[in-house]
Amino acid sequence: MAKQPDGPVTIRSAALERFAADLFARAGMTPADARIVAAVLVWANLRGVDSHGVTRIPRYLELIRLGDMNPRPALAIAQETAATVLLDADRAAGPIAMTMAADYALRKARDAGIGLALVRATTHTAALGYYTARVAEAGMAGLAISASWPTMAYHGTRAAGVATNPISIAAPGGAGGPVVLDMGTGIVSLGKLVQARRAGQPIPAGWALDADGNPTTDPARAQIPLPLGGPKGAGLALMIELVTSLIVGNPVLAETLEGTDTGKRHRQNGAVIAIDIARFTDVAAFGREVERLARALKALPRDPAVAEILMPGERGHRTRAQRTSAGIPLPAPVLKELDALATELGAAPLASR
Amino acid sequence: MAKQPDGPVTIRSAALERFAADLFARAGMTPADARIVAAVLVWANLRGVDSHGVTRIPRYLELIRLGDMNPRPALAIAQETAATVLLDADRAAGPIAMTMAADYALRKARDAGIGLALVRATTHTAALGYYTARVAEAGMAGLAISASWPTMAYHGTRAAGVATNPISIAAPGGAGGPVVLDMGTGIVSLGKLVQARRAGQPIPAGWALDADGNPTTDPARAQIPLPLGGPKGAGLALMIELVTSLIVGNPVLAETLEGTDTGKRHRQNGAVIAIDIARFTDVAAFGREVERLARALKALPRDPAVAEILMPGERGHRTRAQRTSAGIPLPAPVLKELDALATELGAAPLASR
Repeated sequence: MAKQPDGPVTIRSAALERFAADLFARAGMTPADARIVAAVLVWANLRGVDSHGVTRIPRYLELIRLGDMNPRPALAIAQETAATVLLDADRAAGPIAMTMAADYALRKARDAGIGLALVRATTHTAALGYYTARVAEAGMAGLAISASWPTMAYHGTRAAGVATNPISIAAPGGAGGPVVLDMGTGIVSLGKLVQARRAGQPIPAGWALDADGNPTTDPARAQIPLPLGGPKGAGLALMIELVTSLIVGNPVLAETLEGTDTGKRHRQNGAVIAIDIARFTDVAAFGREVERLARALKALPRDPAVAEILMPGERGHRTRAQRTSAGIPLPAPVLKELDALATELGAAPLASR
Repeated sequence: MAKQPDGPVTIRSAALERFAADLFARAGMTPADARIVAAVLVWANLRGVDSHGVTRIPRYLELIRLGDMNPRPALAIAQETAATVLLDADRAAGPIAMTMAADYALRKARDAGIGLALVRATTHTAALGYYTARVAEAGMAGLAISASWPTMAYHGTRAAGVATNPISIAAPGGAGGPVVLDMGTGIVSLGKLVQARRAGQPIPAGWALDADGNPTTDPARAQIPLPLGGPKGAGLALMIELVTSLIVGNPVLAETLEGTDTGKRHRQNGAVIAIDIARFTDVAAFGREVERLARALKALPRDPAVAEILMPGERGHRTRAQRTSAGIPLPAPVLKELDALATELGAAPLASR
């Protein structure tokens, strides 16, 4: 660990992973599962997506305490066809269920050209890009979606009706790693609203509603993100619920909107699709075409407001390279919170690692 | 045909379909193919998506004259796996290739749980919602995408780098018909920019660039739509090119951006995925859950700026019902243009039908 007087603490990713795995194991997960969840969270930190990194640990531990996340899930294949599986996740941590889903999707795609793994009853799925990048690193194209409870306005509503359900698509062949798009369906993420609140910075009109459903630019009042492009983002979020939650028979939105007991619990569903590129074209040729297109886009006249024309995921690859060597910066309050949890669980604090 | 003194002409959908099919057949298509293309275009008119209806006929006929659309294509399966086909469309009209792709996706999904039909070398794919609605009407969930040449700015560019590549997702179970999302990845469609130009109405800041790549609100100068949500819409459009054009080995964007001869021709690629809901849950139960969720969303507090909280595709179902009985309104200039083409091809004009 390295600490500057006023700056954030920086910690090596391997140490951060061991720390996170230690906490999850002490909270009841098997060591193997704990390592998977830790790896997925730290992957997000490495790529600069700190909102989906180790800052989630306190919430994951809370979900275990609440009984919403099962630290010893009995994951099972509930249904299987030539090209699909339906994985019953038994409230596993999202990274456990979704990593398994990505691997099933790959296996099915190898057999059948395309593979689909549907996931019933998981919990917070973390950074979806992890699962599609995993598929892309195996030479296939990946698509992942996940469905959560209502946090975002549905188009035309003045209350949360859908979630900022994310979609991620990845393909192999980028210079620094796969091309990885990972986007929420809101015009802004909940995380960015929280950041604006902490910074006391007004948010643009059209980003969010307050708790009463009124449009606001006041970061202290902004609660409900608006959908990306009105009916487009809202429609995508809704269709993600339909093709995950309703197909696996575990509706999330309606339960919460109706105020049922089930709807008060944290629950998610998801899906991963893999397409075996090698069945249709040479994967190396595909990669060269990705590079060719990237070159053509980067050669276009640049908007002066943007520092550089980037491919999806490119910034994350660079941050990963930088943080792999220099370590992951953690704000002091995050370190403090994590170390308090460590102490509670009898683990060595980060500050000592 | 019914005509008011100053209003648009209205024509029955069946007559409009016969007229369109007549023109396509005279332009060289088989009568069966001509009927399919006509049905897909008129479907868009029936649902109120007039930008993708019979106003496209002149362009389709021009594409045939230019040799970019093949009126007598030899469609062939270039590759097949347990769950996929790669359909070589031989420059067929988009509706021919994509209807066939939807049917292959359905057949493969019936066998394997999920089915993917990739389409190489088609032309304008018309309203994508037609193909996903076709899948949904067969009781499955459908997803369709199509990739076209650069018309939209890529995030950070001041020139067209990607297309407003659309994505459509549909599922069975809506009250008036399937739930059908059909969205472009631009913040605005090219069609809406044309409408604003004709009406002389200024467009909002952030919608478009002029031909020189400068942001503009002048509808006479607006040429290049901006992507929906910056990197999100641009990223989706790019990934659609990767998972269609680059997988089928027929790159569209790079060819045009590099200014090759191939890149000057109108070419598209596409894909349709079907998921067999019945393998995972009861389709009737699925439909009831869709209705339940629609009820919950419609019961939420409504934004007063919006007349009604709608499900994706709901407005289209209503317009279809209304236009099926009352006829399809065609602006007088559209009628005039179509009848001039009819005369040129020796067909009976719409005005006489």
